[in-house]
Amino acid sequence: MFQTFESQAERGAAQERLKELRRLMAAAKLDAYLIPRADEHQGEYVPASAARLKFLTGFSGSAGLAIVTKKTASLFVDGRYTVQARSEVEPGLIEVSTLARTKIGEWLGERLSRGQRVGFDPRLHTVAEIERLEAALKPHAIKLVPTNRNLVDRIWGRARPPAPKDPVSLHPLKLAGRSPQDKIADIQKLLKAEKQDAVILTLSDSVAWTFNIRGSDIPHTPVALAFAILPAAGKPELFLASEKLEPAVRAHLETFAKISPPETLAVRLKALRAAGKRVRLDPNTAGYWFARALGGEKRIARGPDPSLALKAVKNATEIKGARAAHLRDGVAVTRFLAWLDAAAATGALDEIEAVRRLEGFRRATNQLREISFDTISGSGPNGAIVHYRVSDATNRKLRGGELFLIDSGAQYLDGTTDITRTVAIGKPTNEMRERFTLVLKGHIAIASARFPKGTRGIDLDPFARRALWQHGLDYDHGTGHGVGSYLSVHEGPQSISRAGMAVLEPGMICSNEPGYYKEGAYGIRIENLVLVTEPEKLPGADRETMGFETLTLAPIDRRLIVSELLTAGEIAWLDAYHARVAAALSPEVDEETRAWLKAATAPL
Amino acid sequence: MFQTFESQAERGAAQERLKELRRLMAAAKLDAYLIPRADEHQGEYVPASAARLKFLTGFSGSAGLAIVTKKTASLFVDGRYTVQARSEVEPGLIEVSTLARTKIGEWLGERLSRGQRVGFDPRLHTVAEIERLEAALKPHAIKLVPTNRNLVDRIWGRARPPAPKDPVSLHPLKLAGRSPQDKIADIQKLLKAEKQDAVILTLSDSVAWTFNIRGSDIPHTPVALAFAILPAAGKPELFLASEKLEPAVRAHLETFAKISPPETLAVRLKALRAAGKRVRLDPNTAGYWFARALGGEKRIARGPDPSLALKAVKNATEIKGARAAHLRDGVAVTRFLAWLDAAAATGALDEIEAVRRLEGFRRATNQLREISFDTISGSGPNGAIVHYRVSDATNRKLRGGELFLIDSGAQYLDGTTDITRTVAIGKPTNEMRERFTLVLKGHIAIASARFPKGTRGIDLDPFARRALWQHGLDYDHGTGHGVGSYLSVHEGPQSISRAGMAVLEPGMICSNEPGYYKEGAYGIRIENLVLVTEPEKLPGADRETMGFETLTLAPIDRRLIVSELLTAGEIAWLDAYHARVAAALSPEVDEETRAWLKAATAPL
Repeated sequence: MFQTFESQAERGAAQERLKELRRLMAAAKLDAYLIPRADEHQGEYVPASAARLKFLTGFSGSAGLAIVTKKTASLFVDGRYTVQARSEVEPGLIEVSTLARTKIGEWLGERLSRGQRVGFDPRLHTVAEIERLEAALKPHAIKLVPTNRNLVDRIWGRARPPAPKDPVSLHPLKLAGRSPQDKIADIQKLLKAEKQDAVILTLSDSVAWTFNIRGSDIPHTPVALAFAILPAAGKPELFLASEKLEPAVRAHLETFAKISPPETLAVRLKALRAAGKRVRLDPNTAGYWFARALGGEKRIARGPDPSLALKAVKNATEIKGARAAHLRDGVAVTRFLAWLDAAAATGALDEIEAVRRLEGFRRATNQLREISFDTISGSGPNGAIVHYRVSDATNRKLRGGELFLIDSGAQYLDGTTDITRTVAIGKPTNEMRERFTLVLKGHIAIASARFPKGTRGIDLDPFARRALWQHGLDYDHGTGHGVGSYLSVHEGPQSISRAGMAVLEPGMICSNEPGYYKEGAYGIRIENLVLVTEPEKLPGADRETMGFETLTLAPIDRRLIVSELLTAGEIAWLDAYHARVAAALSPEVDEETRAWLKAATAPL
Repeated sequence: MFQTFESQAERGAAQERLKELRRLMAAAKLDAYLIPRADEHQGEYVPASAARLKFLTGFSGSAGLAIVTKKTASLFVDGRYTVQARSEVEPGLIEVSTLARTKIGEWLGERLSRGQRVGFDPRLHTVAEIERLEAALKPHAIKLVPTNRNLVDRIWGRARPPAPKDPVSLHPLKLAGRSPQDKIADIQKLLKAEKQDAVILTLSDSVAWTFNIRGSDIPHTPVALAFAILPAAGKPELFLASEKLEPAVRAHLETFAKISPPETLAVRLKALRAAGKRVRLDPNTAGYWFARALGGEKRIARGPDPSLALKAVKNATEIKGARAAHLRDGVAVTRFLAWLDAAAATGALDEIEAVRRLEGFRRATNQLREISFDTISGSGPNGAIVHYRVSDATNRKLRGGELFLIDSGAQYLDGTTDITRTVAIGKPTNEMRERFTLVLKGHIAIASARFPKGTRGIDLDPFARRALWQHGLDYDHGTGHGVGSYLSVHEGPQSISRAGMAVLEPGMICSNEPGYYKEGAYGIRIENLVLVTEPEKLPGADRETMGFETLTLAPIDRRLIVSELLTAGEIAWLDAYHARVAAALSPEVDEETRAWLKAATAPL
């Protein structure tokens, strides 16, 4: 199993650890100290060796920040993690707050006195984050103080897991579609155009994409933790622990890159600074430490990590891989859904067993490398918790008359998947069916949209919500995120959301996942991945428009659809999608599943 | 008539004027000089005395910028004005370009040499505009040089029309709904909360709204050109030419404001600076001169003009006024449409006559104070020119088989209107009817939308385009702009557009005007004004949503609708709208119009 189910709370230790931390704070003359969830790569996941926030507070979610003062300890999480945070931290010792990260400065301003000092580890906060905080603290005359060694690391000691040293693998050209030499040349062209001497790649998936390497240093995202300096001309330098490189891998990489131990990075940055180089750094993704090493925030050439926009647009090989991965994943998910219908009828099935079985069907493809995130397996009220993680403590049976929401994904060498299906267990209520149908209308509105060049995700997001809005309903998450190619299941720059200002380009892959959540009752989400198609001029059109090709292949539960609420066009879309699912999967599944699939994909 | 139809090009003079300007530039050691359309109030219209761009180049449009260098003269306009600009300027002397205003810096950077100097009048460019230009010119080592007196004014001489001195009128409480004292108190509360000592109001409609005054210094917008300094406590100071104030008006204003001549403004700003006051200025709307007078861009407290957000949300009295104004205007427009159907059949009617008659019907209400902008009256291909201004030179007959687009508005004491109707003259083609129906679908999608609190115009704009996008069609303008209350027909901060980041609040009035334009053939636009309604919880809803009340009352041409392309919901919307129009207008119109109205509003 790639997933575990223990209740992760590790209580009892927090009191001692906070006391130790406060002792170090006092020695460093700090009145407060910041402990973010992020590591120095600012990725979605961190290795156990960098899970400082969890070590200190017990909180295991993927986003959060603790602030420890002389007397108080507060954990700031977003709305999706409130319940989990409250159950994981020691009550009375650590206060959980949902104050927005952007308001932390004001919060500190109100609590500390003029002249007091707030310590932070400059590797763990982005440039933009520190600048925002600095601006907010300035009127209060509170000082931000970078600490040389992380104070949590100093108390962690021998219990701290070792840094991951998993071997790096090469991602072959036949899967990547473009050589690292070509990708490096693309970035170098961009640097020259913008008169920059070099760029620092600080995100592990940026490094993985650029150099066509993969790894398993962190859960669910197949990257090796690494940094790179990419000069506008000449060989890039890759900072990677030597133990991760088998001789053949090293030899291959050394044909186009210099390999250096991570410890030498600081020296190289100082050399760039000393040589007066104009070095590009992405203030939104790079640690503040980088800007400092390069001579300060004012000396860096600000600009987005150039690999982000390039990585987001998949090439023909990656698109072919994505289609193959989705066919394979569709077989596994459909076998699971067929099995589920029978198993749920017994009344004995629970959320954890569903996760195990789904992983089992994916393993049966013999090509599963990892799951792309912890499966969200929520029955009844648990389905209404958007980022629900099932554990032994929360595990629930799938009961008749309830909905079951399962959101999962796989990492295959040729592509990353992410799919959510909501299934009726027994007989659903009319309200469940009506609201499922409204969510489906939003899903179809995205899947069938045509849009001109220049359209951004922000322009499409409302299409997914309109049917819900008309009934006074909505959901509190974005409609879609970018997805990598055997990389992170969440990648930018594009998103279909209220904040999605990046233009959608042909070749981008996004999720299409509107939902509806009734707290304490049930959750609905329908998620497929979609590929932005090439612009074309439809018959009678003035302008070229783009659209989406739906990649994900698995039935959408017909028992939850109120056909009368759908337009003829929406019914036509669903029937055509189901016909495509049936045609693609039928030859690939066992006879029993095939029979189930035929019924599940019958026209409305 | 409030509108004129002469071809405005005044050719022949440009050569001499450019020569004179270049002589003054040489004396001031300037290598280039900027001549924007804006005056020192940055409003949409300028008085004849400030029409410097037109004086120099002949271009009469409402947005543009000329750059004169030693050898060249270029006029930068946006896409809607290219054709007009080319016809108005002297070919060979002045080159017309559609380069975006934001790219002017790069354009200058490419053409001038290091160390050269670009002159500008600091009163005519906003703070933001100059800062952007400065940043773009810095890498080229080109200097921006403010000139003390405008160079165009120096060559204009005696031919220059005098500044307007029309009397100021008071906008009574029974129309404004809120006293100036209360509005001033609202702004002062905001200033105190943001720890600012004063704000400078530089937009004439901000001053008009805050002080409940109106005027007729410029066409179509009933304002007096004025500035104001509003301190966080105490009496505001209104800068207005004495001749504009009749004794009774002055006496009333002096009960809550100090009146000073505009010439004293500079002294007052310097006094604020000397006293070290924290003065709020809106960098996007205030002239750069204000920031300089206050001690430089770095010393001002940046923030939006506080009256903008307050003015945008109409109070109950203004809403009542808007409804009355729209009923009155609907009567005039409907009488016009009925007349048009008969008159167009003769084949003798032309675009100018249509404008005259429409104004005549509005005058017949006995309450018309002004038109809210020059009527756009475009038959056939002229309808495809989005900001078409009919003149004797372009005037066209309304011919059978063509579409006629008429976009117009009125200024009444109780409200400002803006309406576009597209009418079939004779028998329209199927393509015209299909595309009209797609535009109508977009119009209905806005008019019938429900949306939660926090929704911005950017979130609704795509609803108006979806039906067109699905067919590879679109329109190159926003879907809606804010509208004032007996003030500017275009006001912010809200807009329903790609850039509409302001949240829609109950009480805001917007236009809803999707369109479609086939160059050289025809134009379609369907425009009503809509009012954002109070949030309410629909039956079965989780959340409160808002919607729109359509204010405009006039039939939409049924002959142009392909019913089969509409959903049942869309047909229901149109039939209900037409029933409302018929019920409201029938009692107010003559018998002949009533008969026409009955047929024009029959259910589909």
